[in-house]
Amino acid sequence: MIRTHDAGSLRATDAGTTVTLAGWVARRRDHGGVIFVDLRDGSGVVQVVFREEDAHALRNEFCVKVVGEVNARPAGNENPDLATGAIEVVASELTVLSEAAPLPLPIDDTITASDDIRLKYRYLDLRRSGPAKALRLRSRANQIAREVLHARDFNEIETPTLTRSTPEGARDFLVPVRLQPGTWYALPQSPQLFKQLLMVAGMERYYQIARCYRDEDFRADRQPEFTQLDIEMSFVTQDDIIALGEEIVSKLWSELADHEIPLPIPRITWTDAMNRYGSDKPDLRYGVELVELTDYLRGTEFRVFAGAIDAGGYVGAVVMPGGASQTRKELDGWQDWAKARGARGLAYVVLDAETGAPRGPVAKNLSDAHLSGLADAVGAKPGDAVFFAASTERREAQELLGAARIEIAKRAKLIDESAWAFCWVVDAPMFEKTDEGGWTAVHHPFTSPNDEWLDRFEEAPDKALAYAYDIVCNGNEIGGGSVRIHRGDVQSRVFDLLGITPEEAQDKFGFLLEAFKYGPPPHAGIALGWDRTCMLLGGFDSIREVISFPKSRGGFDPLTGAPTPITAQQRLEAGVDAKPKANAGMPGTDGQAVPVLHSN
Amino acid sequence: MIRTHDAGSLRATDAGTTVTLAGWVARRRDHGGVIFVDLRDGSGVVQVVFREEDAHALRNEFCVKVVGEVNARPAGNENPDLATGAIEVVASELTVLSEAAPLPLPIDDTITASDDIRLKYRYLDLRRSGPAKALRLRSRANQIAREVLHARDFNEIETPTLTRSTPEGARDFLVPVRLQPGTWYALPQSPQLFKQLLMVAGMERYYQIARCYRDEDFRADRQPEFTQLDIEMSFVTQDDIIALGEEIVSKLWSELADHEIPLPIPRITWTDAMNRYGSDKPDLRYGVELVELTDYLRGTEFRVFAGAIDAGGYVGAVVMPGGASQTRKELDGWQDWAKARGARGLAYVVLDAETGAPRGPVAKNLSDAHLSGLADAVGAKPGDAVFFAASTERREAQELLGAARIEIAKRAKLIDESAWAFCWVVDAPMFEKTDEGGWTAVHHPFTSPNDEWLDRFEEAPDKALAYAYDIVCNGNEIGGGSVRIHRGDVQSRVFDLLGITPEEAQDKFGFLLEAFKYGPPPHAGIALGWDRTCMLLGGFDSIREVISFPKSRGGFDPLTGAPTPITAQQRLEAGVDAKPKANAGMPGTDGQAVPVLHSN
Repeated sequence: MIRTHDAGSLRATDAGTTVTLAGWVARRRDHGGVIFVDLRDGSGVVQVVFREEDAHALRNEFCVKVVGEVNARPAGNENPDLATGAIEVVASELTVLSEAAPLPLPIDDTITASDDIRLKYRYLDLRRSGPAKALRLRSRANQIAREVLHARDFNEIETPTLTRSTPEGARDFLVPVRLQPGTWYALPQSPQLFKQLLMVAGMERYYQIARCYRDEDFRADRQPEFTQLDIEMSFVTQDDIIALGEEIVSKLWSELADHEIPLPIPRITWTDAMNRYGSDKPDLRYGVELVELTDYLRGTEFRVFAGAIDAGGYVGAVVMPGGASQTRKELDGWQDWAKARGARGLAYVVLDAETGAPRGPVAKNLSDAHLSGLADAVGAKPGDAVFFAASTERREAQELLGAARIEIAKRAKLIDESAWAFCWVVDAPMFEKTDEGGWTAVHHPFTSPNDEWLDRFEEAPDKALAYAYDIVCNGNEIGGGSVRIHRGDVQSRVFDLLGITPEEAQDKFGFLLEAFKYGPPPHAGIALGWDRTCMLLGGFDSIREVISFPKSRGGFDPLTGAPTPITAQQRLEAGVDAKPKANAGMPGTDGQAVPVLHSN
Repeated sequence: MIRTHDAGSLRATDAGTTVTLAGWVARRRDHGGVIFVDLRDGSGVVQVVFREEDAHALRNEFCVKVVGEVNARPAGNENPDLATGAIEVVASELTVLSEAAPLPLPIDDTITASDDIRLKYRYLDLRRSGPAKALRLRSRANQIAREVLHARDFNEIETPTLTRSTPEGARDFLVPVRLQPGTWYALPQSPQLFKQLLMVAGMERYYQIARCYRDEDFRADRQPEFTQLDIEMSFVTQDDIIALGEEIVSKLWSELADHEIPLPIPRITWTDAMNRYGSDKPDLRYGVELVELTDYLRGTEFRVFAGAIDAGGYVGAVVMPGGASQTRKELDGWQDWAKARGARGLAYVVLDAETGAPRGPVAKNLSDAHLSGLADAVGAKPGDAVFFAASTERREAQELLGAARIEIAKRAKLIDESAWAFCWVVDAPMFEKTDEGGWTAVHHPFTSPNDEWLDRFEEAPDKALAYAYDIVCNGNEIGGGSVRIHRGDVQSRVFDLLGITPEEAQDKFGFLLEAFKYGPPPHAGIALGWDRTCMLLGGFDSIREVISFPKSRGGFDPLTGAPTPITAQQRLEAGVDAKPKANAGMPGTDGQAVPVLHSN
């Protein structure tokens, strides 16, 4: 080692010791003949004192080696805010290891820089204590999760990332294969297929911190590559996976966020989550529950509500505490907000803060009886606002109210930012209707119906429930998984319901179905979205903060300039334009696509 | 959990306990009214006794749940070879969890199957104890390496795998980018660039068990994706990295191969390795060293030798103990062997087992004086064979002798297969001559010359040495790395020597050079080839054994059928055929390629 001591480790008890330090010039202050330098390394900062003539050339972010003696600071000059504040190092020797040009991004936690500058100079951004802490936290999170899993005899197993294209769902990233021109690998959307195969293989307990790829349109917080803590177990039930998930999450939060999660984490059914919070990932840091008014308003002459009720739909409301004090402009703002979400608007009633009398556009349309009982029906007080949603599709209306609930919490400042609220959302539906009137799998077609529905999901596919579970933190889904189907007869019935013929199933899922012929064990798993988990753990507001070199919008990397055009030579060699040979590369298979299995 | 106990954990002390087990039918034996089943799970095997009528349907690899009572086996029926051999489980309840069709690959360690069958049915292959053990060993190896690194405050940091193309060296795998049509990501050949950027970022201690990609022509033991344990540190010297490497390797071998590596691991210079073993990754499990005869044979009239000597080249020999007893056919076989390697042949002399008199084609061409002193000069005894190589290029001749040395060890059975021989090969050359008469970097252009050469490598580029080191185990390079250049002036001089102009350097290495303007620390690193390391640790003869789902030749996956053709729709969407926009995706950069940095 070039250094003998870490800069941040020096204390009063080191006084008198000669030390060699190495790090960066974080700050320099000149004081008549003497230069004080804050020397920074990975462990922290220490003050180094140079004679003016020795250090006049030093500038910020020079990388230096310093030999010196640790001295107690003169009385009155201690800095109690600094771990090394009792001492300073009086330099006897200085070596400039490398110089620094003027900085495009100051190494200063208090300075806000644009994302593009931060990413282009990520290596400077990471010298700041906040960003560096984020990567260190993530490293610790990996270690903690692994400790839990190894203590339970899990095997860490790497699965392939050059694999088979699955063009049916989210888009795959594709890789041309030079040695078999005209054919392509796909980058996996998750290790789902392989982890299930590992269960068939008898590995019983698998985990991997796995890189996954999804070619999606970029939204604010998406990256083309992302990471999940991927887990699968054999011979277990839903409760076993949930218990394991709780052990991991509670250890993480205990050690890295100084928060003890009360265990067990509460479970809420998917239906309850939708009914009460209008979301399958409810933020439980605040109340503001939805109230169904379908029965209460039955018989109303207000067309919007009556239409939904008569069609067997749903009318509901959510209350904004104190919302009556909003200006007309603020109330109009809600209409814009709703339209931006694709709704036609957001009906509301405000209750006069003094009298409780209902006012507003909807009030005119409701009968006196409906108006007079409204406050009680929705649990509103004078001074509150009541927002309504109505639709022939219960879920559509509930989701609008759920989004309004979140917006209410923000606008009314109901969120305790220091709070942590976890829940499991369980009993998710197996199927949902397609636009064509058929059924599609909500999770994926290998998710098992629960015991209640296993033998009769055909009777009411819209009501059939799955052993599928998501873990939610402060309104963010941080993980999810399911028990998988391992019985051939059940799998066939699910395919039947989904309108997949045995031939199509063979075409699409051939190698997995083949594996399932040979005594597959009951198995279940989960995947934690590792970027988001670490983001929440560290209190960050973007997953980019916990990714070493994230991409910006459109998948562009401001640092390296990727992606780039390729040369004609590369294109030729890669076989991009070659026609595949008949049956190229697919003995024993049929060249058909396999389905997307990116849920977990 | 579906089970209460692991099958392999039951002992005599469990007698009387009622247990629930779950696993696979490994073997079934019928004994008049009673069926004995070996039930296998991840922990091992136990014998279960069924009444005939309860279990007649069971076949091999059915997945079952069994409730039963643990009984001591009747006296005389114990099986001391089995951990559970003192007991058996008398079944009271049987549930078939899933059935198994007739097996294309028997679950039997003693049966040899073709690689294609093993890979196509890898999930059956992995039910065999050998293959399963390989994956468990690898998981343990990961854990051990991580323990060492975390104890030394390393941060595990993931680096991008969708990155910038580096078309100069080994081929990149490419990924078309739908959101920026006409541009492509490349999959990284190693995290080299990013780990160096992390050092510039002040992360100081980085590691990652990293997936890497290289689009090479498939050789026997290559995979298109592979894994390395990738490490980089700041403020360290070569000795620090070597010490860390030794700590990791010695822990691995101690815990997983029951072998204590004597530390420190011996270091041999690259030049010595070539001179003595004709290899930069010498197998030190046996002797059989090369002997240089350039001076001894000076003045010979044998044209082959004289030509090399007069041109300033090299003549050397390697001795095959007992090689004189080879038949003429065997000796001719050496010529074929040499030709298969691209040599013109392999000159030899055999020493008569009785008299020590030299015979053979070369003997006729050497003078009496040269012949009579030969045995002493090469250290041969009567009955040995002496193989010669001569070339104007020292390295070419030495490599031929080095290969002959390995072949000698095999044919003469000199290899102790239970032995472990490690060494570090250090002081590698910085540069080698190109065919065009210029210089190229042996390692990569960011590798630092050693202190002796740092200020004067231009004086004798062919002699200048680098701080580059490889770790070798039984003749396999299992890892390598280097100290990196961190001084701009040194980097410029290296580029000068390599004939890279500042403009070209900027074009090719722009973003790394830009980073190096801002106080880069001295740094060094290493990467262990993790597939090969685990292969050796487990005593396997192919890296496929330690990869969960390896590809076969040509990158084909017999299990999933990858790679496959893609649909026209996929092709269109991926933007494969789009023309890049001018400067597409590359603000601030120039669209030029960056070099391959796959060494470590």
